[in-house]
Amino acid sequence: MPPLPQGYRLSGIFCGIKKKVDKLDLSLIVSDRPASAAGVYTQNLVFAAPVALDRARTPGEGFRVVVINSGNANACTGDRGLGDAVEMARLAGAVVGASGEEALVMSTGVIGNFLPMEKVATGIQMAAAQLGTSDAHLDAAGRGILTTDSGPKIASRSLTLGGREIRITGLCKGAAMIGPNMATMLGLVFTDANVPSADLQRLLTAAVDRSFNCISVDGHMSTNDTVLVLANGAAGGSPLSGADLAAFGKSLTELCAEIARMIPADGEGCTHIVTLDITGCASAEAARTIARSVADSPLVKTAIAGGDPNWGRIVSAAGYAGIPFDPAKVGLRINHVELYRSGAPIPFDDPAVAKTMRENREVHVELSFGEGSDSIRFWTTDLTAEYVRLNADYRT
Amino acid sequence: MPPLPQGYRLSGIFCGIKKKVDKLDLSLIVSDRPASAAGVYTQNLVFAAPVALDRARTPGEGFRVVVINSGNANACTGDRGLGDAVEMARLAGAVVGASGEEALVMSTGVIGNFLPMEKVATGIQMAAAQLGTSDAHLDAAGRGILTTDSGPKIASRSLTLGGREIRITGLCKGAAMIGPNMATMLGLVFTDANVPSADLQRLLTAAVDRSFNCISVDGHMSTNDTVLVLANGAAGGSPLSGADLAAFGKSLTELCAEIARMIPADGEGCTHIVTLDITGCASAEAARTIARSVADSPLVKTAIAGGDPNWGRIVSAAGYAGIPFDPAKVGLRINHVELYRSGAPIPFDDPAVAKTMRENREVHVELSFGEGSDSIRFWTTDLTAEYVRLNADYRT
Repeated sequence: MPPLPQGYRLSGIFCGIKKKVDKLDLSLIVSDRPASAAGVYTQNLVFAAPVALDRARTPGEGFRVVVINSGNANACTGDRGLGDAVEMARLAGAVVGASGEEALVMSTGVIGNFLPMEKVATGIQMAAAQLGTSDAHLDAAGRGILTTDSGPKIASRSLTLGGREIRITGLCKGAAMIGPNMATMLGLVFTDANVPSADLQRLLTAAVDRSFNCISVDGHMSTNDTVLVLANGAAGGSPLSGADLAAFGKSLTELCAEIARMIPADGEGCTHIVTLDITGCASAEAARTIARSVADSPLVKTAIAGGDPNWGRIVSAAGYAGIPFDPAKVGLRINHVELYRSGAPIPFDDPAVAKTMRENREVHVELSFGEGSDSIRFWTTDLTAEYVRLNADYRT
Repeated sequence: MPPLPQGYRLSGIFCGIKKKVDKLDLSLIVSDRPASAAGVYTQNLVFAAPVALDRARTPGEGFRVVVINSGNANACTGDRGLGDAVEMARLAGAVVGASGEEALVMSTGVIGNFLPMEKVATGIQMAAAQLGTSDAHLDAAGRGILTTDSGPKIASRSLTLGGREIRITGLCKGAAMIGPNMATMLGLVFTDANVPSADLQRLLTAAVDRSFNCISVDGHMSTNDTVLVLANGAAGGSPLSGADLAAFGKSLTELCAEIARMIPADGEGCTHIVTLDITGCASAEAARTIARSVADSPLVKTAIAGGDPNWGRIVSAAGYAGIPFDPAKVGLRINHVELYRSGAPIPFDDPAVAKTMRENREVHVELSFGEGSDSIRFWTTDLTAEYVRLNADYRT
């Protein structure tokens, strides 16, 4: 791993929120100086207490710490849950000599249960005692936020702006193979760039629109989905602006896309990761809506699991997305072979395309429209019998 | 079966569109006198040729015959497909001494292939030679429209209006276990009531909103979905109006709901049929949108397959439906046991509820909102590993 952004220390520990001792369940990310912060949150009307807390605080300045627990989502817990989130922020602030208002909180795991606050308090103390900047610290922080993920999802970027090195690191969690309780997606990005919170919010929103909003496993939006970004300015210099700010935003988007893609890629039950390129649309939003309709169709997902270049399922899933288009201008390629052109199927070597699908975990689908010049890249999984088994039979 | 509506004759035959000789693949429904007709069609932008033809002709008067083939959907077939649908209508009209404009057409099956018009022409001749009014004729007509269905889906109603007996019979097709190509849903209702086409269209639209629009297997809207209704007035009397028309409409809705429900109930791979009652909403449309979000969530569907009373998956699926509601007013019952009240889970006998889910094919879910007085009843299936196997592995 490249070096961490300057001015941050991290840790991840086990404090008994989860049942298994070999799993970490609490992470702390501390900025040694006040950082600006921005956030993007679930649009679910049923949202968890930490979402309520962070949403009220971001975008904003002066944050010193983020505390994240796994194993309990603190969702559907009412006023007591909100009080627990506030207390969790206070405890995290206290260990770095800051107020509760200078902390942000994320939770993921079982919903409908109250947080075990004694364990959380002990855990925050333990995590504070183990803060550091090594690869091992980053790895531990990455593990403390996981639920059913097979391993930590971490990536870094660095770029030089105005002669200064800017570093960005991101962690996320979320499993293609959705666990027993929730499909929560959490992301935390931290950078030593100097970016005021208003700019940071604008750049994060744009980055999420090309990354975390472009992945789908099963279309189920959770109560806890959150992506936060911290920028502490430890790299030095005045606030980024103009071309430098744009370059930082581009790097942030690339980083978010890199870690977001790890979510659908992490499905043990999944046998394919599908990259959908939706091109020639009137807007990126239109392209994303079509992508989501195709990505969430069980008929498309099972066809891909079965290695079937089934153009009919893909084209018809686009047709009910609710986005207007001229069907006579639609084209489709799977693994770079053209199957459909100008609104009609064309002859292709079906067994050869099926073979490329069966023999590769990566599948590339390009669906083109003649409606404009906007496009989106979207990632999803196939749907396998193993997915169903894991999500139906976990009680037995 | 009760007697057919007066003035209709039916048949269903095999003419070689399907490969298997033991499956019927063409049905004819003839009205001995001109009938009014109404239709409701797929909203998919990619729609089949018969949909284009029927949509242009309904609502309208003077129809004599409906011809339906299975095994080939005549979809994604361009101008030649539209010409074939027009020719199919002409052939069906000709055998009853009517013009092509007096016929309606439906097709279901494989998409992207041209109709085998010689077989269709021969089939229409064969079907015309076998028209009749017995239970066997009705059964054959019901079988000629099927694809992966396990058997015909037929129901009848009768009611007395103004001293006259009115009969209504409906056929439909559509399989919970979606076949290799399309999840097409077709419905045909015919009655001897005297109802002008404008009234018929209004009543059909309302009936479909409470029946065929309230079922979901996998949320994939096909290129061919069509529901038609014919009313030939053979029961006698002047056009229905006022309370009589409303009573007819109520009966039409009940009949449509009865046959529509047979679609999710017909899943070999499915182990549960789920009745969703969404109550206390500001509008029926809002209730239906929430129902669809819950019904299409793979996490909800797999939980039901696994016999898990997972309130979190159900409540959170409602939360991302895009319909505003106050989460603090939400309540949930599964199999009449209360799990969630005023926006929070409540203690319940989890193993007992799980047992009722495991031991019964029928599952009842009631999700209540404090937003208004409108409600909807919606039917869906669970999601099983067998569903995935059938839809992924059919090539091998």
